[in-house]
Amino acid sequence: MIDTATALQLVLSHGTSKGKTMEVTLNDALGFVLYDDVISPMDMPPFRQSAMDGYAVNANGADWYRLVGEVQAGAAHQPKLATGEAVRIFTGAAVPDSATAVIMQEKVAVNGQQLRLEIPWAPEMNIRPQGEQIKKDAVAMSNGTLIQGAHIGFLAGLGITKVKVRQKPSIAIVVTGNELVSPGTPLPYGKIYESNGAMLQATLNELGYKNTSIVRIADDYEDTKRVLQETISTVDVVVITGGVSVGDYDFVGKALLAIGVEQIFHKVKQKPGKPLFFGRKEGTSIFGLPGNPGAALNCFYIYVYPLLRNFQGAEAVELPSVQVPLLSDYTVNGDRAQFLKAKMHGAGVEILDGQSSAMVRAFGYANALVFLPEDSTKINKGELVKTILLPHQ
Amino acid sequence: MIDTATALQLVLSHGTSKGKTMEVTLNDALGFVLYDDVISPMDMPPFRQSAMDGYAVNANGADWYRLVGEVQAGAAHQPKLATGEAVRIFTGAAVPDSATAVIMQEKVAVNGQQLRLEIPWAPEMNIRPQGEQIKKDAVAMSNGTLIQGAHIGFLAGLGITKVKVRQKPSIAIVVTGNELVSPGTPLPYGKIYESNGAMLQATLNELGYKNTSIVRIADDYEDTKRVLQETISTVDVVVITGGVSVGDYDFVGKALLAIGVEQIFHKVKQKPGKPLFFGRKEGTSIFGLPGNPGAALNCFYIYVYPLLRNFQGAEAVELPSVQVPLLSDYTVNGDRAQFLKAKMHGAGVEILDGQSSAMVRAFGYANALVFLPEDSTKINKGELVKTILLPHQ
Repeated sequence: MIDTATALQLVLSHGTSKGKTMEVTLNDALGFVLYDDVISPMDMPPFRQSAMDGYAVNANGADWYRLVGEVQAGAAHQPKLATGEAVRIFTGAAVPDSATAVIMQEKVAVNGQQLRLEIPWAPEMNIRPQGEQIKKDAVAMSNGTLIQGAHIGFLAGLGITKVKVRQKPSIAIVVTGNELVSPGTPLPYGKIYESNGAMLQATLNELGYKNTSIVRIADDYEDTKRVLQETISTVDVVVITGGVSVGDYDFVGKALLAIGVEQIFHKVKQKPGKPLFFGRKEGTSIFGLPGNPGAALNCFYIYVYPLLRNFQGAEAVELPSVQVPLLSDYTVNGDRAQFLKAKMHGAGVEILDGQSSAMVRAFGYANALVFLPEDSTKINKGELVKTILLPHQ
Repeated sequence: MIDTATALQLVLSHGTSKGKTMEVTLNDALGFVLYDDVISPMDMPPFRQSAMDGYAVNANGADWYRLVGEVQAGAAHQPKLATGEAVRIFTGAAVPDSATAVIMQEKVAVNGQQLRLEIPWAPEMNIRPQGEQIKKDAVAMSNGTLIQGAHIGFLAGLGITKVKVRQKPSIAIVVTGNELVSPGTPLPYGKIYESNGAMLQATLNELGYKNTSIVRIADDYEDTKRVLQETISTVDVVVITGGVSVGDYDFVGKALLAIGVEQIFHKVKQKPGKPLFFGRKEGTSIFGLPGNPGAALNCFYIYVYPLLRNFQGAEAVELPSVQVPLLSDYTVNGDRAQFLKAKMHGAGVEILDGQSSAMVRAFGYANALVFLPEDSTKINKGELVKTILLPHQ
């Protein structure tokens, strides 16, 4: 059985399909990954810019200046200041080339056309240099950036209206199991309500993946083969839940091999999610997640998420992680690596109750997963643990 | 000047408007906040459930059992096992009432109809008790829960198809400043490209707020009054950027007071975002954010975000925060409380370069804000600092 690091490395080294490149308007770029560096078409700020409401002076070493005009933010004129002259100026306004400093308005006394500085001036004081944030022709944003609100703000500020990105993957969620019935219908003895499809689709939606569908397969071998074959040929990524353990009625694994899916791995030394399957066929990546919702969602974040980001061409494909102090002692059960639903709050991270694979409830309270490597034993309160940040709104 | 905690408390205590309640289908519930507790209509699991592929036995203390049938996942029949009898059973299947344990298949030897246990059995071994995850009539999900993918999975598993939520706020983003021109047009000397509108709209969109509009106001007092009046009367939350500092051409503050907005506060002892304004009129909350994009986005996350979540009726309104070790020494500039764009990775949190109010670029690399209280001086590498988790996909 392979370990978690090997499994992720295999997912990324085999799941190398990438989305086609396309151009989108900046306003539609949210959640896409940049293809090619964006080169700044301009200096930002585009001129020496006042960082304050105050007075721009052409300093002469004296305390007194003659006020000769003003420059509002957005004004296009550029007064020429002789030595000893000053203009009223506002935050964001272009500082005249002839000005040597901006003095904030709270630090001057104004008397008609006379201005007296109450503090010493220094060269370029309260002036943002042209190109301080970025210079023309510098890389404004790198290939592989996952575009979020701040990026849109930054690029808009450079006058950019379109960006080149990669298409997002199309994703089919395949739900298997004769025990499943749809919510909204009566529940016969022995059955449970199907929930993985809705859960994964909503989770994908939250991550900006809208091109998703849910495919339902009964536990029938011929039907499973036919539907899987068809699904694999039409989408970029197939995420199957259930049918991947070793039970006599788990047709999925057998069907995948029978239709020519190359098995990259099956089973990972981890808890939850041991039966995880990953395979490839003709450029399509196929995950077999456990049917237990808690295990399925865990495998989604740890293995499917990186593959989706990789498809988009993202530089960072895994969820971010950081060392955080553990809030209480924790004793590990078993020798597999563990992903534990957890909540970061206050002084550290709390491992939540309800870690069973079958339970998804704790995920509703979680904002993180604590990762404990294989053969961990007891972790003490206050020890730093690897904490994987779950996406959150 | 008030401090950050007082400012947030004032936002929440005055900004008490809440969205109307409505019913949505579970599939459309993502990003809404639950109104009223959801009571579980059933036990989950709904029956004693096998946690393994194996054999359900009615144990007699002996090692040998007689195999009398099987129960697949989803099967509705319930064989009656006499003492010493066993049935083949699969993960997720209903365990017959007469069975006392499930033995995993790897731990038995099967010979025709004879089954030999290779490990001792224990009562209820490998059986998930009925109602283990939740019992009928218990609170499945509390009023105030922000609904994410895992919640949808959990509720679907209980057969729930609709939930009661609060409407999300309608939000107008008001952009002010004569220095602003639209991206895609030429940039005259003294002007900059307008970026706050697109940035805030994308950020709201990412958070699930789709009912947003951008309103553009020139720096003209009468026009400012008229447009603000009209905007305030039509939406739940108004987020203005620019025009709230003290410059002679910053009409916004004056206009807000002139049209009867009650000023709750103006200016907070923080960096960035000192000029922040908050007011109320007829149930509408009005924020005046600084025009500098870095400061605007910061104030959005710290003050606007909690108000929006409060409007939705969320129990947790602030972004989550946690103590994380600082990756390098940091020396504080000034006596105001600081929100520093930061990136959690590896062993701790890194305070990023480019903290100036005017700069939004560092936000593109950030996944957190480090909060340093007023009068902080030097923080050493390894010290734990309050780290606010930014939303991320």
